Amino acid sequence: MPSKYEELGVDVSKKGVEFLKKITDDMFPEAFCSIVKDPLNPEWGIILHTDGAGTKPVVSYLYYRETGDVRFFETLVEDIVAMNVDDAACVGGLPIAFSDYVAINPFKLSKQDLLNSLAKGFSKTFSKLRDYGINILFSGGETADLSDIVRTFDISGTVLARVELSRVITGRNISPGDIIIGLRSGGKARYEERENSGIMCNGITLARHCLLSNEYLKKYPEISSEETKGYYGRFKIDSFIDELSMTVGEAILSPTRIYLPIIIEILREIRVKAMVHNTGGGLTKCLKLGRNIKYVKDNLPEPDPIFKLIQNESGEDWRNMYQNFNMGVGLEIVVEKGDEERIINISEKFGVSAQIIGRCEKSSEGNSLTIISKYGKFNYN
Amino acid sequence: MPSKYEELGVDVSKKGVEFLKKITDDMFPEAFCSIVKDPLNPEWGIILHTDGAGTKPVVSYLYYRETGDVRFFETLVEDIVAMNVDDAACVGGLPIAFSDYVAINPFKLSKQDLLNSLAKGFSKTFSKLRDYGINILFSGGETADLSDIVRTFDISGTVLARVELSRVITGRNISPGDIIIGLRSGGKARYEERENSGIMCNGITLARHCLLSNEYLKKYPEISSEETKGYYGRFKIDSFIDELSMTVGEAILSPTRIYLPIIIEILREIRVKAMVHNTGGGLTKCLKLGRNIKYVKDNLPEPDPIFKLIQNESGEDWRNMYQNFNMGVGLEIVVEKGDEERIINISEKFGVSAQIIGRCEKSSEGNSLTIISKYGKFNYN
Repeated sequence: MPSKYEELGVDVSKKGVEFLKKITDDMFPEAFCSIVKDPLNPEWGIILHTDGAGTKPVVSYLYYRETGDVRFFETLVEDIVAMNVDDAACVGGLPIAFSDYVAINPFKLSKQDLLNSLAKGFSKTFSKLRDYGINILFSGGETADLSDIVRTFDISGTVLARVELSRVITGRNISPGDIIIGLRSGGKARYEERENSGIMCNGITLARHCLLSNEYLKKYPEISSEETKGYYGRFKIDSFIDELSMTVGEAILSPTRIYLPIIIEILREIRVKAMVHNTGGGLTKCLKLGRNIKYVKDNLPEPDPIFKLIQNESGEDWRNMYQNFNMGVGLEIVVEKGDEERIINISEKFGVSAQIIGRCEKSSEGNSLTIISKYGKFNYN
Repeated sequence: MPSKYEELGVDVSKKGVEFLKKITDDMFPEAFCSIVKDPLNPEWGIILHTDGAGTKPVVSYLYYRETGDVRFFETLVEDIVAMNVDDAACVGGLPIAFSDYVAINPFKLSKQDLLNSLAKGFSKTFSKLRDYGINILFSGGETADLSDIVRTFDISGTVLARVELSRVITGRNISPGDIIIGLRSGGKARYEERENSGIMCNGITLARHCLLSNEYLKKYPEISSEETKGYYGRFKIDSFIDELSMTVGEAILSPTRIYLPIIIEILREIRVKAMVHNTGGGLTKCLKLGRNIKYVKDNLPEPDPIFKLIQNESGEDWRNMYQNFNMGVGLEIVVEKGDEERIINISEKFGVSAQIIGRCEKSSEGNSLTIISKYGKFNYN
C-alpha cells in the first residue's frame, strides 16, 4: 500500500537516481555525498552539491498571496543553503562558493519581490555565517521565466565545498559499539532569530496537503497538480496552534537549521566516524552509510509537535513518518563510545539540544535500522 | 507594446536580477559571468555558474508522449552542458566539474525513463569532450519530485570552472576598431552527430507557441500555463519542413552547440578581447561587455530557416527577433583587427562556419548596438 506521502507523488526511495549515481566520478561512493578529485590540488577533493527547498516555495507563495508578506521568500535562502552546506559538511567539506537557480511563473508573482527578498536572504545568511568564520562567496545564479513549466516558482542551489582527502568522512569505519548522537531540528539555536518547528525541507508535500484548507486550492489552483487530489487540512495558513506556539504557516515555513557552525567546532575537536543530515529519507538516511551495520535508535527524543500534528491530521503510519520526516533529529553524528559527551556539550553551547539516540550493532547482511519508539518498533533496510 | 515573446511571460531584460547581481562576490563585475576568488589558489578564480535549458523540456516531454522516444531527454544534457561551460569559457574558464538539478512531476512521466536517458546523455557528452582533452567530472545532482510545482519537468545544471586571474577575459579592453567574429549556431560541427537548426536554448517559449498545434494542448494541458493562451501553430511535432530539412520537433529540440573545443584552441593561439555566448538577449548580449562601445553588426549571416519560420508564424517584429534569438550566431568573439582570419580558420577546421559580422566603434555614452540587416536597421542600448 502506498504511503500517504507516495500518494502525493513523492518517492522517498528515489527510484531512478541510481542511473545518475552510477556515472558520477565519485572518489568515495560510500560517503554521504559525492566528492570528485581536484585537478589543481591533488590533496583535496571537490564537493559540487545541488539541492532544493522541496515544495516550501508553494507555501511561501501562498503566504505571500494571502498576506502580502515576503518574509518567507527570504528564509527560503536559509533552506537551500542548509540543504547544501550541511550535506557537504557530512563528508567534512567546507563551503567556498554558492550559486542559486530560480524558475518562476511571472504571471503569478512579482519576480522583483521574489528576487529582492532572496537577495536580502543571501546577504543575511552569509553575513551570519561569517560571524562564525565561515566565508561563502556568492557567485549569483540563474533566474528563468518558465510559466509553462512551473506553476508558481521553484528554487535550488549549488554549493562548492572542499575537503582534504586525508580528512574525508566516509562512514567506512563505523563499527559495532559506536554511539549515535542526534542534534535537534526544532527550537532555537543561539545564532537563530526565531523558534523553529523543526520540519526542515522534507515531507513538505504531505504537511501542506494534510494541514492546509482546500479553500486555498479553490482560490489558487496553481498550488497543486490535478493528480494530488486537493488539500484536506483543517487549518488556515495563519491559524495559531497552541502546541506549536506558532501559526501553521510559520511551522511549515520554519527555515532548515544550518548546523555548520556547530559541525565545524565538532570537527575541530573530535574525529567523528560519520555524519548524517536527515533530509530525504528522514531517520532512515543513515542506511546509506557504513558496512553491515545495524543501527538501533531506541532513545529518540519526543517528536516535535509539528510531526505529531501531521501524523494526526494525515493518518500516515508512524513507520512512514520516520521515513518521511526528520522527526525532530536534523543531524546524526556517529562517534566512538566516549566521545558522546563532548559532542553534546558543543551542540548545547550553541543552544541546540543533543542526546544519545542509539548505537551501532553488527548486521549479518547489509545495513539495517531498528527504531524503537513509543509509537512502535520499526525495521528498515 | 509588449513583444510576442513578452506576452508569453518571458522578460528578456531580466528585471529584478539586479538584486542578486548586486550582492555577488564577483571580482570582475564587468565580465561575461561571475568569477569569485579561490581561497586555496590565490592566482586563480572560480566560476560557479548555473543555467538551464529554458522550456525545451516541455517539447522533449511532448515528443516523448507522442512517440515514446526518449532521445530528446538525452540531448537536453548537451543543452545544459553547453549553456554552462560556454558561458564560463567566455571569461576564459575551463570546466572542472558539473552537477545537475531535475524537478519532475512523476504523475506525468516516468522518472526512470528520464533519468536513464539523462545518464546516457552525460556519459556521451563528457566522453565526446574528453576526446578534445576536456575532462569534466560529473558529481551527480538532485532529482526532486515536485508535482505541485512543475507541470512536467525542469532541468538545469551547474558548472565549476577555473581561470587564472592573469588570463581572465573581462571585455574591459574592447576598443574602437576591434572586429567581431560570429560563429554559426546551426549546421553540424565535426564533433556532432546531426545537423542542428541553430536554435540553442533561448526563445523556445515563442518557438513552441507559434509553431506547434493547439491540438497538443488539448491532449496535454500540462504543456502550458493558463495565461499563455494556447499554442497557435500550424505544425505537428513530426511535420517535416523542407526549408529546415528536419521536423519541427527536431528543429526546436536541436541541442545547443558546445563551442568549448573550438574556444580552447582559439584561446591557445590568440589573445581575444571578449567572447559573448548569445543566450538570453540574443544578439544584444554583447551590450553587457565593454565601456562606451558602439557595436555595429552589419554583416550578419542570413538567419537559419528556423528563425525565419518563427518570425513568419508569430509575426514577431524583426527588432525583437534579434533580441529573443541568436539568429544563427551562437558565439561572438571580439579581437584586434588582424586576428580575424586565424579565428575563422580554427572554427572552420571544426566544421563551424564563421565570419566577420561587425566592428566596434566609439560610443559617446554607455554601450550601444546597431544591427543593419535586410530586415531593417535596429538600435539597442
